[in-house]
Amino acid sequence: MAETTAPRRNNRRGEGGRLREEILAAASDLIERTGTEQSVTLRAVAREIGIAAPSIYEHFAGRDAIVDAVIASAADDLRVRVEHAVASESEPLARLRAGCIAYLDFAEEQPSRYLLIFTRREPSDVSLATAARNEVFEVLVAALRATAGEGASADLLADAITIRIALHGYATLRPTLPDFPWPTHAEQVDRILTRFG
Amino acid sequence: MAETTAPRRNNRRGEGGRLREEILAAASDLIERTGTEQSVTLRAVAREIGIAAPSIYEHFAGRDAIVDAVIASAADDLRVRVEHAVASESEPLARLRAGCIAYLDFAEEQPSRYLLIFTRREPSDVSLATAARNEVFEVLVAALRATAGEGASADLLADAITIRIALHGYATLRPTLPDFPWPTHAEQVDRILTRFG
Repeated sequence: MAETTAPRRNNRRGEGGRLREEILAAASDLIERTGTEQSVTLRAVAREIGIAAPSIYEHFAGRDAIVDAVIASAADDLRVRVEHAVASESEPLARLRAGCIAYLDFAEEQPSRYLLIFTRREPSDVSLATAARNEVFEVLVAALRATAGEGASADLLADAITIRIALHGYATLRPTLPDFPWPTHAEQVDRILTRFG
Repeated sequence: MAETTAPRRNNRRGEGGRLREEILAAASDLIERTGTEQSVTLRAVAREIGIAAPSIYEHFAGRDAIVDAVIASAADDLRVRVEHAVASESEPLARLRAGCIAYLDFAEEQPSRYLLIFTRREPSDVSLATAARNEVFEVLVAALRATAGEGASADLLADAITIRIALHGYATLRPTLPDFPWPTHAEQVDRILTRFG
């Protein structure tokens, strides 16, 4: 097996953290390539990185644990991406706007990882999935709250939810209707925020 | 096999239209029950209605043709549901509001059929799927246009898209976050329409 795969850094022993990262990266790649987490099996992951499947058990209890970790990692990447975008601007509305655009950019660039965070109906670890699904929302809520300033609206949560569902709707519907006259990310975000920001 | 399934109307021969409907209904039920169109196989559908799998070929070219027909039928049901709701009111904004609420009601009551219409990435018949995905949108666009009256906004399409993605986002995100403080369908629709209607 190992002979037929691309050469990899030789870290079969020791350096357990790095092997754990390789397992996660291989599972992420599989999901992004095939479009489904069904493709993540111990055998497929092991083949990707040129190790024996049982070695995976040193790092993960099984394939569900790997998928859970991939979800957590994808959610983390999305949150960091949005946080960086928010931090790149100084004016409150520009910060919120940048965060929303970054959200749509992530979903477009990594559609399968995005879907994995938000659409899996029966995650093996429900509390982990819920936390992962909500953490980027909290970043957006904070950015929205800053735009409201002193007179923060009592409707802030409702506005944040509407922004959230509009972003998610755009992110998930657009790939299924490639020929539809979609606005750009910036146009769509502006359309949302001129009404809700 | 037939002995173990529920008794059904005896229409194995003739009455081809009815058998076609039974095949579609069985496939829909399978999808709603299992949450995935993967469950639709010729064998599973045949078992559901107590016929031999090859009999299905009298009505459908194969399992993909059945799934395509289920999508078309689900999209039709959604469109009719929204049209009826729109027709139940007389004032333009009330008509649009009723249509939007009916949209969310359908998605909540039949989540797997709803997802089947809108989330299948690689439908076997792309033009059919695109038409199915857009027809309910056209009903909403017409209802929105009526609210604008004489001075119809140049931004009408952009507003319609934003309503569309917000409805889709709510419909698809809510089931994945059951413990989140979601507004009711009417509250969410009002929240959208007071900004965009």
